[in-house]
Amino acid sequence: MTDTLQRLAVLGAGSWGTTFAKVLADAGRDVTLWARRESVATAIRDTRRNPDYLPGVDLPENLHGTSDFDAALDGVDAVVLAVPSQALRENMRVFRDSLPARIPVVSLAKGVEIGTGLRMSEVISRVGQIDPERIVVLTGPNLAAEIALTRPTASVLACTDHDRARAVQEACATPYFRPFTTTDVVGAEIAGTGKNIIALACGIADGLGLGLNAGASLITRGLNEVTRLGVELGAVPATFAGLAGLGDLVATCWSPLSRNRTLGGRLAAGMGLDAALEAAGGQVAEGVVSCRSVRDLAVRHKVDMPITEAVYQVCYRHLPPGQMIRFLMDQPHSAE
Amino acid sequence: MTDTLQRLAVLGAGSWGTTFAKVLADAGRDVTLWARRESVATAIRDTRRNPDYLPGVDLPENLHGTSDFDAALDGVDAVVLAVPSQALRENMRVFRDSLPARIPVVSLAKGVEIGTGLRMSEVISRVGQIDPERIVVLTGPNLAAEIALTRPTASVLACTDHDRARAVQEACATPYFRPFTTTDVVGAEIAGTGKNIIALACGIADGLGLGLNAGASLITRGLNEVTRLGVELGAVPATFAGLAGLGDLVATCWSPLSRNRTLGGRLAAGMGLDAALEAAGGQVAEGVVSCRSVRDLAVRHKVDMPITEAVYQVCYRHLPPGQMIRFLMDQPHSAE
Repeated sequence: MTDTLQRLAVLGAGSWGTTFAKVLADAGRDVTLWARRESVATAIRDTRRNPDYLPGVDLPENLHGTSDFDAALDGVDAVVLAVPSQALRENMRVFRDSLPARIPVVSLAKGVEIGTGLRMSEVISRVGQIDPERIVVLTGPNLAAEIALTRPTASVLACTDHDRARAVQEACATPYFRPFTTTDVVGAEIAGTGKNIIALACGIADGLGLGLNAGASLITRGLNEVTRLGVELGAVPATFAGLAGLGDLVATCWSPLSRNRTLGGRLAAGMGLDAALEAAGGQVAEGVVSCRSVRDLAVRHKVDMPITEAVYQVCYRHLPPGQMIRFLMDQPHSAE
Repeated sequence: MTDTLQRLAVLGAGSWGTTFAKVLADAGRDVTLWARRESVATAIRDTRRNPDYLPGVDLPENLHGTSDFDAALDGVDAVVLAVPSQALRENMRVFRDSLPARIPVVSLAKGVEIGTGLRMSEVISRVGQIDPERIVVLTGPNLAAEIALTRPTASVLACTDHDRARAVQEACATPYFRPFTTTDVVGAEIAGTGKNIIALACGIADGLGLGLNAGASLITRGLNEVTRLGVELGAVPATFAGLAGLGDLVATCWSPLSRNRTLGGRLAAGMGLDAALEAAGGQVAEGVVSCRSVRDLAVRHKVDMPITEAVYQVCYRHLPPGQMIRFLMDQPHSAE
């Protein structure tokens, strides 16, 4: 029923791109990992490692590193886009004339574009001139560092064409990586974007020493408001209660390594956004971008998102972080 | 619209009973905390502390400790039941002739009774001969140690009579404790019971070193199966996505102090249940009880609950914990 995807290219050799390339290779596929920098490609070829982004992890023999873009795409059955969300539009302009026609395009990017309000799969489709039915979004509770160590996880592949989702599912299933499929692309992407905002809110709450009850309340009310936005945009509520929603959110908020968490701690300590970003050495916490673009969507679609609004106010309007928790406590008494 | 509850008795001076008595006192109520042991009542009276169950926390002046049951109940407008779930039936037999008629009865107990399959509010109602409309169930992300330190949290009060829930809400609201109300008693109680099983599963997974992705997947799939059971029993799905479901579950699974987590670690290390319980010094992790009673309910109502079944098999059927994770990985590929 589904075509076998045997040869795949992964474009982008960051930690998640490299990890997912390893998953595909462990699933028996022939995988080429394209790195922008030749030094990364050389390291993968010569040492079977990507020391910059996945130190200490041995990569399988059937994972080939290259910085030659055309060679990476030669004869592939599917392509995986693993470039940062912020650089996706710019990359798609470069990629679009080279991407083979008709094959599935798997997106690892999460986010909503500032200004346009487009989801990442929409950016891929519009800029890359790719039929939306060809785009498969990968999401779920997938901390790369754990998957690289073959610790077990479940995952979600979303595509409006269920057969394409199933073809990718078959291509990447391993004993430690278990993908489920869904046709709810909108839900998968909005959930994957919203979680970064909530993780940033949890990071701020944690930095303020508010405790686990407050963190759990933020996760609950946060998932609730992200679900409301998603449903308004056409998503299915069950997606948010599943691995792409709740699962990804919990893994992200739990992770001690999360950039959102670290940044939240710095904001809680009283740093302004610029100083906090500088302290992160230029690494961008996705929640900082997403609270802007998701807030715009919420305003446009008249969806009440008090946590997103509060995070936005802390990041861009100098709201003291200590006042962020008020959304939780200061509303009039009511039914939940 | 709602009667003011000014004088309340809390029956049971464990950590949660003492903490909730403090919340009521901080909300300006006149509170009597009944302790079975005179030494605990004396400590509360003489030192304003409950050193056995809430060390280091100062109790307010309007919280009165006593071991005199009739004195505790004298003239109260509402009573709070804070005895352990396992002892609830036995206690209700003793309490029932003394409990004042008509006043609200607030239940802090969580669980489903082994053998009968009754929820705690049903045990209270049947054994105590109390109209179900008088029973208000308190639940939510409420780790007692944090609330005792006045860290902020939201909470849920469930009663089929919404006016009674609102009366209790008014009685216990403080700047740090924010109660919401619902009429979904079944959902609140099933969610509060199921979370202990999932927390035990997370404890086992954590003990096996499976990582955060696996833990987040367990939480997601676990809440999913508990929701299915609840809906089958008449609950509203939204309850499980709210503070009583997701919120309580995340707080419990997060807590490093959770008995379920500690016990799960011991089971993962290869201890049998008896040895693991003995190592806990007789402190019972609720998940050990709940996986039996909830599994019985699931079988009776034909609801598929693979995580509950796996935890039951580990606890009572010598399933090696390492095989528990298979539910996640070994099912046929499918839509989520």
